[in-house]
Amino acid sequence: MIRHFHEADYSWDDVDRLIYKNDGSPFKDVTRQVLFNGMGNIPCQLRYFEVKAGGYSTLEHHEHVHLVVVFRGQGQVLLGEHIHDVTCGDVISIAPQEVHQFRANKGEPLGFLCLVNVDRDKVKLPTAEELKDMKQHQEIKNFFESC
Amino acid sequence: MIRHFHEADYSWDDVDRLIYKNDGSPFKDVTRQVLFNGMGNIPCQLRYFEVKAGGYSTLEHHEHVHLVVVFRGQGQVLLGEHIHDVTCGDVISIAPQEVHQFRANKGEPLGFLCLVNVDRDKVKLPTAEELKDMKQHQEIKNFFESC
Repeated sequence: MIRHFHEADYSWDDVDRLIYKNDGSPFKDVTRQVLFNGMGNIPCQLRYFEVKAGGYSTLEHHEHVHLVVVFRGQGQVLLGEHIHDVTCGDVISIAPQEVHQFRANKGEPLGFLCLVNVDRDKVKLPTAEELKDMKQHQEIKNFFESC
Repeated sequence: MIRHFHEADYSWDDVDRLIYKNDGSPFKDVTRQVLFNGMGNIPCQLRYFEVKAGGYSTLEHHEHVHLVVVFRGQGQVLLGEHIHDVTCGDVISIAPQEVHQFRANKGEPLGFLCLVNVDRDKVKLPTAEELKDMKQHQEIKNFFESC
């Protein structure tokens, strides 16, 4: 089965563009498209998330793993205590409980394919205490303030 | 963990470019790069295959599923009895036992990300009889002769 891609609006055949999340988590200007929802011996869901320029995904951690391939534009990702520039084609694996956030802070959209297991635990947000600790790192503080 | 992508030669940090297969299956001008090899609750391997212009992957079927995202160039894919044009961004899911082959028959390379379960069955080739049946379809015959 093929879902053809349409570059004009970063859409795929018969795939709806959804709200990123409905669970009250903080985020800004992110959409979600579900491209694959498990089949046979691949128990995984493939989503395409697009963060508008100036937007960001939820700062979160969880037991389940993410496998991400950047598909459009550029930005930055926070992984644990480190900030990395990311651009189209970069492959990012996010380990269990690794705190992470994507920010489209380079003046253009940041789109990425993100693979997860269909069966996964709920997202957790850092506590106020943890957030305070993170902001002690100047690089992380700059990242949070970048957009 | 990040593996940065290098567009100049379609390589990733610390990823070797390997021979596509060593099992004697027929193919032409295909390389393999393993970008992810399973972690936590994602029991899958992500490979990047690149078919040079004029090359083709093995015509095969198997029980395990493929999830493919075209990453470079264009070409065609045979899925069962049908031939489809494919281009960058197209998402292709290949069902258990569906016969398939990729051909870079549009004068440019065809590169694709391909997800499989780490634990999977061996590839099977069509029998001479099955191949003869397939060639009865003019469209499939043209596809086989396209490069």
